[in-house]
Parts: sequence; C-alpha cells; structure tokens
Amino acid sequence: MIYLDNAATTKPNERVLESAEKYLMQEFYNPSALYRAGYNLNLQLKEARKNIVSCIADENKFSCVFTSGGTEADNHAILCGGKRGNIVTTSGEHSAIFEAVNEAKQRGIEVRFANLNSDGSVDVNHLLSLVDDKTSLVSVIHVNNETGAVNDVAEIAKKVKTKNKYTLFHSDGVQAFGKINFRLTKDIDLYSVSAHKIGGIKGVGTLIKRKDLVLKPLIFGGGQEENLRSGTENVFGIKCFEFAAKEKFNDINQAFDHVSALKRLFCSLLDSTMFDIISLESASPYIISVIAKGVRGETILHEVDDKGLIIGTGSACSSNSNKRYSRVVLACGINKQLADGILRISFSTDSTEQEVRAAAGILNETVANRRRLMT
Amino acid sequence: MIYLDNAATTKPNERVLESAEKYLMQEFYNPSALYRAGYNLNLQLKEARKNIVSCIADENKFSCVFTSGGTEADNHAILCGGKRGNIVTTSGEHSAIFEAVNEAKQRGIEVRFANLNSDGSVDVNHLLSLVDDKTSLVSVIHVNNETGAVNDVAEIAKKVKTKNKYTLFHSDGVQAFGKINFRLTKDIDLYSVSAHKIGGIKGVGTLIKRKDLVLKPLIFGGGQEENLRSGTENVFGIKCFEFAAKEKFNDINQAFDHVSALKRLFCSLLDSTMFDIISLESASPYIISVIAKGVRGETILHEVDDKGLIIGTGSACSSNSNKRYSRVVLACGINKQLADGILRISFSTDSTEQEVRAAAGILNETVANRRRLMT
Repeated sequence: MIYLDNAATTKPNERVLESAEKYLMQEFYNPSALYRAGYNLNLQLKEARKNIVSCIADENKFSCVFTSGGTEADNHAILCGGKRGNIVTTSGEHSAIFEAVNEAKQRGIEVRFANLNSDGSVDVNHLLSLVDDKTSLVSVIHVNNETGAVNDVAEIAKKVKTKNKYTLFHSDGVQAFGKINFRLTKDIDLYSVSAHKIGGIKGVGTLIKRKDLVLKPLIFGGGQEENLRSGTENVFGIKCFEFAAKEKFNDINQAFDHVSALKRLFCSLLDSTMFDIISLESASPYIISVIAKGVRGETILHEVDDKGLIIGTGSACSSNSNKRYSRVVLACGINKQLADGILRISFSTDSTEQEVRAAAGILNETVANRRRLMT
Repeated sequence: MIYLDNAATTKPNERVLESAEKYLMQEFYNPSALYRAGYNLNLQLKEARKNIVSCIADENKFSCVFTSGGTEADNHAILCGGKRGNIVTTSGEHSAIFEAVNEAKQRGIEVRFANLNSDGSVDVNHLLSLVDDKTSLVSVIHVNNETGAVNDVAEIAKKVKTKNKYTLFHSDGVQAFGKINFRLTKDIDLYSVSAHKIGGIKGVGTLIKRKDLVLKPLIFGGGQEENLRSGTENVFGIKCFEFAAKEKFNDINQAFDHVSALKRLFCSLLDSTMFDIISLESASPYIISVIAKGVRGETILHEVDDKGLIIGTGSACSSNSNKRYSRVVLACGINKQLADGILRISFSTDSTEQEVRAAAGILNETVANRRRLMT
C-alpha cells in the first residue's frame, strides 16, 4: 500500500515507540503519586513539556498543557479563551474550531467568520475588519488541513494586537508543528498541536500557552497540569509525543525540502487536463488539494484504494458529518460541481519519489477510466 | 518492589498489550477515513464499544462514549447531564466529580452534598432528602476510591427515580468496574469507567450511557463517537481497554475471592495497637484505608517506599491540591489528628499472599520505629 493520507494520521515512528516503551510496562506509575517512582514520572513530564515547547518557542515565556489531542486543545482555547464579547475566526478552520465556536455562540458569544482567498488562506483585511474592542479571541489556523494554505499567523497576530491589545490570539498548529519551521512570537497566546500527526500516537496533544496567561480548565478534577487539565497523565503517549517532536525538529528543513520536491514532482506528473490543483506553490508541501474534474472524489478514493493507493478527500474528521461538500472548499469559492471532485494527497517525510510516481500514475489512470465510463 | 497502589493505577496487562499491539504500528489509520483500512478500524471501535458495554449492561439498552479517561467521563456526565436546577452528589466523590460540580455551581447550578457514614458510604436518607423536583442530576460514586466503601447505586438510583423520575442518575464506577460484579439497571443513566485502573493504559476511559438518553458533547469537532466526543479515536488505547475489560470480567468472581482473602490476611497481620482500619468488611476488597495512629501517613509512605513497598495516602489525584487532609476522610467524621495518619493499600489480582505478608510486616515495623523515635 502507498499511504498518502498523512494529514489524517501518520504511522507512529518506530524509534519513538522503542524509546518510550519503558513508560508502558516498567514506569507505569501514577505521576501524581508521592513515592519516588511516581515523582520520577512527574519529572519526566516536566522534561517532555520543556522539550516540546522549546521546539517552537522560548521555554521561559511559554509552557504547555497536555491534552487528549488537537481537538481538545482547540476546544480549550476557544471555550476558555473566548468567554466574552465576540470571537473572530476564519471560514477555513478545522471542525474542532468550527464546532467549538458554534458552541461558544450557543453560550452567548458572537462569532464572526473571515472570508478565505481561493487557496484557502484567510483574507487578512477582512479578518482585521471584524476585530473590535469587544473581541476576546481571534483564532486562525496555521496550515489549512484541507488545502495546505499557510497563514502568516505571526503577522496576523501582530496586526490583531495593534487593533486590540487585549484580544487573545490562538492558532491551530496541528498541520504546521514539526513540518513548517516557525517560532511562536509574543503576540501568539495559544497554539494547538497533535501528536499523531507527527509520528506520535493518537490520544495526545497539547495547548501551548504564554506562561503568564491565566486560563480556566476545560476538564476539572485532580488538578494535574498545574490545575489546567485534570486526569491521570498519559505518560507513555506524552513521551512518544516528546520524542516524535524532537525527531521532527531535528531535520525539519531537510524534511521540508524533501517533501517540497515530492510535491513538485507529483504536481508535474498529474494530468492537467483532468486535475486542477488548488494548493499554491506557497502552501505547505505536506498537503496537496486537487480537483478531479467531472468525477466524484469519493468514488476515486475507493477505486485507487483497490489499486493500493490510500488518499483522502478533504478532512477525515468531516467524514462523520455526512455532508457531501467540504465547508472549507466551498469557502474557497469553488462551486459544488467541482467541489465534488476534491481529493487530498498528504505526504510524510517517509514518502518516496517512487511512491509519488506510482500514485500519480494510478490517479491519472483511474480518473481517465472513470471519465470514459461516464461518457 | 511490592506495588500496592493499584487504585492509583495498575500495571498494564502484558497479554492485553500484545493483543492490541497491531493497532499501534500496523493498523495505524484514522478510523474516520473512508478507505477500507480506515473503515475497518471503525468496525473495530464498534466491536470494542459492544464488548465493553456488555461486560456490565444490556448492550441493546446501553452504549458508550470513549473519552480520555475517567475524569473526562465524570466531567461529561456532570457538566452535560446537570444543566438546570440542582445537582445532588455526595461528600465522598473523587475530585473529578467534586471539581466538576464546583464548576457547575459557577455556571449557576445549585449543588447539594449528601453526608457520609463513617466508612465513606453515602447516608442514603440524607441524599434522598436533598432530591426534589428541581434536581436534574444525582451522582453517587460506586466504590469510594479512598475507603473502598460500596454504595448500592442500583438501589439508590431506584429511590431517586421514585422521588423524581426526570432526574438523571450517574455513578463514577472507576473503582468498581471489573472488580465488583454488577450490572447497570434501568435507573442508572450514566456510568464512568477508566481503562488504566483495570490493566489497560492511561488516557482512555468511557462514559456508558442509556442509549435513548440525549446528551450534549463536552468536546466539539469532527463528530466522532456519534457526535458525542470529537477527536481522532485512540484506537490502540481503546482496544487495550476492551481486552483488559474482557479479561477482568472473565474471572471477576474468582479474582474477588482471591483479593478478599488478601484483604482479610492483611487486616489480621496489621498490628491493631498502631492501626485503625477504616474500611469495613463490606467494602471493596481492592482498597483498604487504614490510620497509622499518631504518625503522618506521608512520612510512612516515604519510609516504606525506601524499604520496597509502594502504597498511597488517599487519592493520588488529590496530591496536586497540596491539601494536607483528605476531604473525603474528614467527611467520614475522622478528626484531623487521625486523618493525618491515613494510608491506602490497594490490591490487584496479581497481588500475592507473600507480598501481603511482607507489606504488613514492613508497615508494622516502620510505624513502630517512627513512634519510638517520637517518644
């Protein structure tokens, strides 16, 4: 099988699992326990926090709260960060943000959505026009999970703060962390990350936050994570996350170049008479969004699956909603007929040139066949 | 090391990890994905749901929502189940319930606490007197995590429903599931369980619920878990949970007898001139709460740790709150001087007679020494 749905989840990194394995059976203790074996794990969690934060920010200014994943981190940021006035976000957010702001709306917060450009990036001027003195939170996805479009969140955060210095700025960094070289700036208050998108395991994520930011918990109880997130800490998952992050950031630029070359190759091999490429050259090379013209993406997904190629259509998470068209793709201004043919190809650093050549071949052949059958 | 803090967390079951291992590296796909490998995992999750629910309830009448653990399940039940009027709970709840109802109070819900009997069980008459026509939710812990006291939640739920048939009944079953043979009755609407207390791994739990009960999500997003809990499903953790639950329920009565014998032996070996046993004979045999008279429990915990014995003092989760006295132990009517000497010894089915004999010996010797040093 050729697996090119790495934006949905990545295969865990074997070296990472080996390094973290001892936290499963040997060091299985409760890190909140007072005896030595428990306390040692508490120190291991501190180490993990420091190592993950330092990948992307100054550890003196930022800390992090471990969560059960990117979705919980996003919910925490929205539901605890945007508690009054209005929340400004974009029409290109992952459903973890989109549904969380809808919930905030139910709780009496006004929600404002900024328009997208055709590549899926946010229209920054429109976004800024929505920010006013009542805006408690702005949330902008860093790398769009469907099109790969990169929002310059450092620049956007700066402009938001110029307009209202009391507004919190959050970014969903799930598709950016470990892939795009980037450091958190002082204007970014909150940043969500998921472990299983970078070679860690499912069920772990983190909300990175400015150290001096006071935030309420989303989940209450034993007071773990400095009272910001209760529940026995998932030590094994967190150590996997730490080791995976370290590996990713070790060679982030080399990996970026490798994947960029794969993206260029893939785009050059796709038959341009049948495919429109939505993702721009400036997008994250890890995600390519294409439209197979005149056919249904879902049909193609199943046909190429039978031929040994695994790809996605938009966000895996949105498949539960039974909505035919991607909300984000429509917000890019793509009409329903074309939106029906959307496919998402997403790479990992383990993807190879050979796989990319084979994948493009299978896609060209499959869409050509399908189109023949339809005429 | 002799590990007798199994109420804090258990060592994962090796057979369980072996059976579930393939969901880590081989079957690593996103269960929400549309291609075959993803959909197969969706079926595996369905299987896990069915198998876990059927351990304790009629699977035609109950389903379950996978969460990141017992704490999240408790929060979900309280914050989404008790949304109006008042919530009635007990003074013997785990902090996941205690802090969640405190949060509900912040949101305008009245919270009423029922008194405890001296063993940590709830005073049922007092509890019932607190239930009225405005009570939206009653939550009663099944097995008290500090004293092991068992509340007859089926009987309590029945009486609550007689008083107000619209009141939801929830029970935190974290220390009961897989240990006490028990089936959910029609009067119990919600029941929380944690995987790492029964040989599964940390970071997984479930909220079992009546199928026809409409509940809001606590975490919003991609609509996983039939829209009740969003976020990519932790397949490996969930399959470990399923396999661990099946093992536990396979020989639940044998295990109960084995641990009951250990409890009797342990209590008979403890020097009664130095120790008061809080846990009654009717308590869960898995948890024994004792008072080492005239000494500090925390000091004893560290001293026996040096001698190779790991035990707890009250709840591991409460160690983060930096409170000297256990809220639950004080609610049992134990004075502060005695509450200072509290120790919790908790067994697993793997605990042996030899370990129990050694543990009692170490405890007797350590407390005797400490008392000698103090006079």
